[in-house]
Amino acid sequence: MKSKHIKYIWVPVIISLVLIPAGFYYVNWSKSGDGAGLYSRDWLPEAVFAYWNPDKFYQPVKSIGGIYKGEDCVSCHSGVTPGIVKDWQASRHSKADKKVYCNDCHGSDHENLHLPAPKVCATCHAKQHNQFEDEKRYGFPSHALAMERALDAKHFVDKPKAEVTACLQCHSVATKCDSCHSRHKFSAAEARRPEACITCHSGPPHPDDETFFNSAHGQIYLKEGESWDWSKPLKKGNYPAPTCAYCHMDEGKHQVADKALWKFGLKEINPLSSGNKIKRKKWIKLCSDCHDKDWSAQQLKAMDTERKRTWSKLYEAEDILKDLRANNNLFPPVDLRPFYPGDDADTLFQFERIGFFEGQASAFYNVSPIERDYFEMWYFGNLNAYKGSAHGDMSFVKKGHEKMDKSLTEIKLKAEKQRASGKIKVDENIIKNIWLKGEYTDFNREQN
Amino acid sequence: MKSKHIKYIWVPVIISLVLIPAGFYYVNWSKSGDGAGLYSRDWLPEAVFAYWNPDKFYQPVKSIGGIYKGEDCVSCHSGVTPGIVKDWQASRHSKADKKVYCNDCHGSDHENLHLPAPKVCATCHAKQHNQFEDEKRYGFPSHALAMERALDAKHFVDKPKAEVTACLQCHSVATKCDSCHSRHKFSAAEARRPEACITCHSGPPHPDDETFFNSAHGQIYLKEGESWDWSKPLKKGNYPAPTCAYCHMDEGKHQVADKALWKFGLKEINPLSSGNKIKRKKWIKLCSDCHDKDWSAQQLKAMDTERKRTWSKLYEAEDILKDLRANNNLFPPVDLRPFYPGDDADTLFQFERIGFFEGQASAFYNVSPIERDYFEMWYFGNLNAYKGSAHGDMSFVKKGHEKMDKSLTEIKLKAEKQRASGKIKVDENIIKNIWLKGEYTDFNREQN
Amino acid sequence: MKSKHIKYIWVPVIISLVLIPAGFYYVNWSKSGDGAGLYSRDWLPEAVFAYWNPDKFYQPVKSIGGIYKGEDCVSCHSGVTPGIVKDWQASRHSKADKKVYCNDCHGSDHENLHLPAPKVCATCHAKQHNQFEDEKRYGFPSHALAMERALDAKHFVDKPKAEVTACLQCHSVATKCDSCHSRHKFSAAEARRPEACITCHSGPPHPDDETFFNSAHGQIYLKEGESWDWSKPLKKGNYPAPTCAYCHMDEGKHQVADKALWKFGLKEINPLSSGNKIKRKKWIKLCSDCHDKDWSAQQLKAMDTERKRTWSKLYEAEDILKDLRANNNLFPPVDLRPFYPGDDADTLFQFERIGFFEGQASAFYNVSPIERDYFEMWYFGNLNAYKGSAHGDMSFVKKGHEKMDKSLTEIKLKAEKQRASGKIKVDENIIKNIWLKGEYTDFNREQN
Repeated sequence: MKSKHIKYIWVPVIISLVLIPAGFYYVNWSKSGDGAGLYSRDWLPEAVFAYWNPDKFYQPVKSIGGIYKGEDCVSCHSGVTPGIVKDWQASRHSKADKKVYCNDCHGSDHENLHLPAPKVCATCHAKQHNQFEDEKRYGFPSHALAMERALDAKHFVDKPKAEVTACLQCHSVATKCDSCHSRHKFSAAEARRPEACITCHSGPPHPDDETFFNSAHGQIYLKEGESWDWSKPLKKGNYPAPTCAYCHMDEGKHQVADKALWKFGLKEINPLSSGNKIKRKKWIKLCSDCHDKDWSAQQLKAMDTERKRTWSKLYEAEDILKDLRANNNLFPPVDLRPFYPGDDADTLFQFERIGFFEGQASAFYNVSPIERDYFEMWYFGNLNAYKGSAHGDMSFVKKGHEKMDKSLTEIKLKAEKQRASGKIKVDENIIKNIWLKGEYTDFNREQN
Repeated sequence: MKSKHIKYIWVPVIISLVLIPAGFYYVNWSKSGDGAGLYSRDWLPEAVFAYWNPDKFYQPVKSIGGIYKGEDCVSCHSGVTPGIVKDWQASRHSKADKKVYCNDCHGSDHENLHLPAPKVCATCHAKQHNQFEDEKRYGFPSHALAMERALDAKHFVDKPKAEVTACLQCHSVATKCDSCHSRHKFSAAEARRPEACITCHSGPPHPDDETFFNSAHGQIYLKEGESWDWSKPLKKGNYPAPTCAYCHMDEGKHQVADKALWKFGLKEINPLSSGNKIKRKKWIKLCSDCHDKDWSAQQLKAMDTERKRTWSKLYEAEDILKDLRANNNLFPPVDLRPFYPGDDADTLFQFERIGFFEGQASAFYNVSPIERDYFEMWYFGNLNAYKGSAHGDMSFVKKGHEKMDKSLTEIKLKAEKQRASGKIKVDENIIKNIWLKGEYTDFNREQN
Repeated sequence: MKSKHIKYIWVPVIISLVLIPAGFYYVNWSKSGDGAGLYSRDWLPEAVFAYWNPDKFYQPVKSIGGIYKGEDCVSCHSGVTPGIVKDWQASRHSKADKKVYCNDCHGSDHENLHLPAPKVCATCHAKQHNQFEDEKRYGFPSHALAMERALDAKHFVDKPKAEVTACLQCHSVATKCDSCHSRHKFSAAEARRPEACITCHSGPPHPDDETFFNSAHGQIYLKEGESWDWSKPLKKGNYPAPTCAYCHMDEGKHQVADKALWKFGLKEINPLSSGNKIKRKKWIKLCSDCHDKDWSAQQLKAMDTERKRTWSKLYEAEDILKDLRANNNLFPPVDLRPFYPGDDADTLFQFERIGFFEGQASAFYNVSPIERDYFEMWYFGNLNAYKGSAHGDMSFVKKGHEKMDKSLTEIKLKAEKQRASGKIKVDENIIKNIWLKGEYTDFNREQN
């Protein structure tokens, strides 16, 4: 009997041995299309993607040939594009004993130039690049994973090209260094200033910009920052008030994840877990560059209070939506909703359908008004309050909670109405017109 | 008969003599709890309140003992918190013949340090402090009364802690001087710049920030302000364009109330009352530092036109709500609404209930959508238009009126619907779930 | 027979000969009222209009008499209004060999001073003025036609005065030069900076301000702009990053229309028409001051992609509204709607009625919610996305499309509901109360 059992053990072993390489092969195959990422076979890049993800998409210009030395590049481009030459001349690259010329980064063969991806910069700036890459260990949200995160998202494929383009501009922070060190000066002094961050970190879901500038820190920066010596490293005593990089990249470290407590406000956490206790100590040490330790600890606690309150509101809303779904009071009902883009109705496995399903956010396209309310509560109200709390701009805390309260009231009233009117009768026509012709559907698929 | 009547006069006299001290005793008793203000017995402060209302809540740090002289403070803190020492070194405090050291404001006993409340600053800066306190004569809105106003508000007690914390940050302008003169430089030059004001004066209900920077004045400041000599007093001829303080604290006066015409736009006034005529003259004199007198008068008149239009819209909305309430077409009906927080249903006197009742604003929590529309119309649209008009940013006038018009249309349509469907049938369950579990109720009371 | 036919030809000839002068006479008569523009007989100007349209409305101050020389003006006004004298002293006007004094622009007779309209400035600055006027050739939108455009708009007359005043402040760019060159410095250096433009170019329908400052260009300006030499002309190589004027007024040309492709995003165009191909070449040449030509072309193409997507959404919404109107499912029905202001119900010709009729925008006053959704989609969502795309701020593209998607969903749901409930029953009372007492009606007409 025993030997017979042992014999059967080969069945799962063999299946695994077949499935694992098959899985690897499948993922590899998925990634080998003309696009990029897990869904690379389902979309084609726009031309501008070449600049956001140069390693993957950049095609050298063929109009001008020849092999050039650095001095030649500078000589010719002084006339053709004087601005960027002046930038370079003002940079450390042009002032080093061994100058870093155009061709050191772009190559010398004018028909095979490349746009330098981070690994090119890493040739000299290995420390910074390693720190940057180290962020990946901490998972999302992350600068280093930003491009992957965008490309491998389920809704990437069928989203309208115009919006995908909008997403990639910021997410390109992972694939090019000049998101922060604007070319061709690549100045550290410049990248230390908050403006380097706010091109991306602004707007409703992450008003880092607005909340910093509204805070006491931001106001001091606005009043005096012009006269500070930005060539100094981001160290205790060097700056009268902190800016984004002073706190999140303290002492110039190119990794912003190892102090991240609430992680962008997108997940409820236990602020007192052992990992978070260590992070809190790092924050308190940092804040204590200027403030009393107790004060710093109290600020963190005030943020916890704010978060606790937020999550109780979000869960209250989520419970209502779960209940509606369970009782088939969502419109359209779950089984009549379209699948996520890229998913196929005929597939063997059950895929997710668009709308409120599980986890914290429902989609923001092709959803019913009550789900949209929840999405806005979660994505805008929540994150407004969080960023306000984290950056010391209490007006955003207030604004965020007001938004959430308004959404919650809307959700409650709509839910009561939907319950009162019983299970929703489905007009197939509406579903076809509104739901299957929405953002995530035919139009986009045709344009990809 | 006469003597008999005279005898009875003692009845109200005695009652008054008993009631007045009783009233004083009651108010005193109310204020003696662990919180602060009229409802001090009903809430506990958060730790951070210590910094916003130090006189009331600050507890000295006990970890380090000893009595120190000023030089000692500077010597040790140069290492511990170099930033604030540098700030002090850049300040007039460190450059005076008789230097003002750390211990002059914080005390010398390290186990009994205090955070300086305004009265500490008043030791030297009595003139400014007296001007600041003088604002109280003019009633709300007021910097000097800001903390009281927050703490003594009926809805303070049961409001979620996170939001109360948000309120107090700005309202702390009454209880500490570094809201404007950021520590430890306490620079007058810095406080003269508009950024000193906009930490608090921004956002939907009081977009002073946005409207100033959008105005011609603000644009000139943005283009040139960096090169102005901010050490000069705020006097005619010293600045090419006015900023917040130039107009509202002209010649450096620490009192902004004696020219306030429309008082934040929250009340309709008669712009031509004798008091306002005097204030208008002050404005015209001030504007005439740069502009023609007629032009200045016309600007004020244009603001009156705008206000008149606004109030006709607000009253139109208010009339609709009054009518709905009178006909029991508000949901929930008046008698089923919860009382204001802190009020008790079993009390002898009839207290206010949450929602649209009287005066200009309805509450913004726990109200029905039509009341919320009115609140937004009143609090956002109205004040957007007002601030735009007052600061010369006509885009906000337009935006404010657009918002109000939208709200008014919503209110009219909802009112018609509610009237058409007759008196609202009350589902007690909804009232219990939505109304009595809202912002102003159980959750908060539990957290206080 | 032939001669008889020839005889009849005189009938239309004579009619034309009568009608053409009659038309000219009518237009002339219309324009000769106390207001200005085509509807000048229907409204009276506010006093402040004198400053926005001085040539038409300014009335000299009579309080001080006398004829003064330039030195006299300066001497007296150094005491009366020192700020503006200092501005003048800092200007090129005071530093020229032949100084340009106050009286050269305002006149010498103190009882007959004028505010200089552009033609006064043109005495010396003819080139700039001619370029500015040249914009008129290109039609709307246009700086040079801005005042006419406002005054000759059908809804100008009955719009509330407060809002008309808001409109005219920006539209006065056509009728005075200090909209950009702030008085009395009239500095070219100052007018080159983006702040000169954003007083008007900001806010929901044209967030040029927001999108520029969020862009990489804007961020570089914010970080470094303070140290640039703004006295240099707007030419290749003079500035490290472009600002509004660098691109739209390249080489200082006072005409921004000859490169305008999408014309403010208000009309769908064929980006590949021959005219637009020429304009695209101009843009690519301009962008190539700093960027690669291919990159520049790709950016323009990315904008086309965005636009294409936008217009498909707008047309989808428009089709729904057309269908509702055709089936009398708009509320109120077309024939019960009020006419546009200024139009008369008893007139011979059929005039437009307020609401969704034809073309791309419905009105934003006195419209039903579904039309308001469409208006917001068109005027805010659309233009947010467009400006984001044009200025390289992808967050606004995203935001704009999110707004449009939300509106479109609302429109679809409301339309389904309106269709489901059949033709709308009309309550004449509602129409009277809501529609005929709205923005465009009795109140305003009474105030004009």
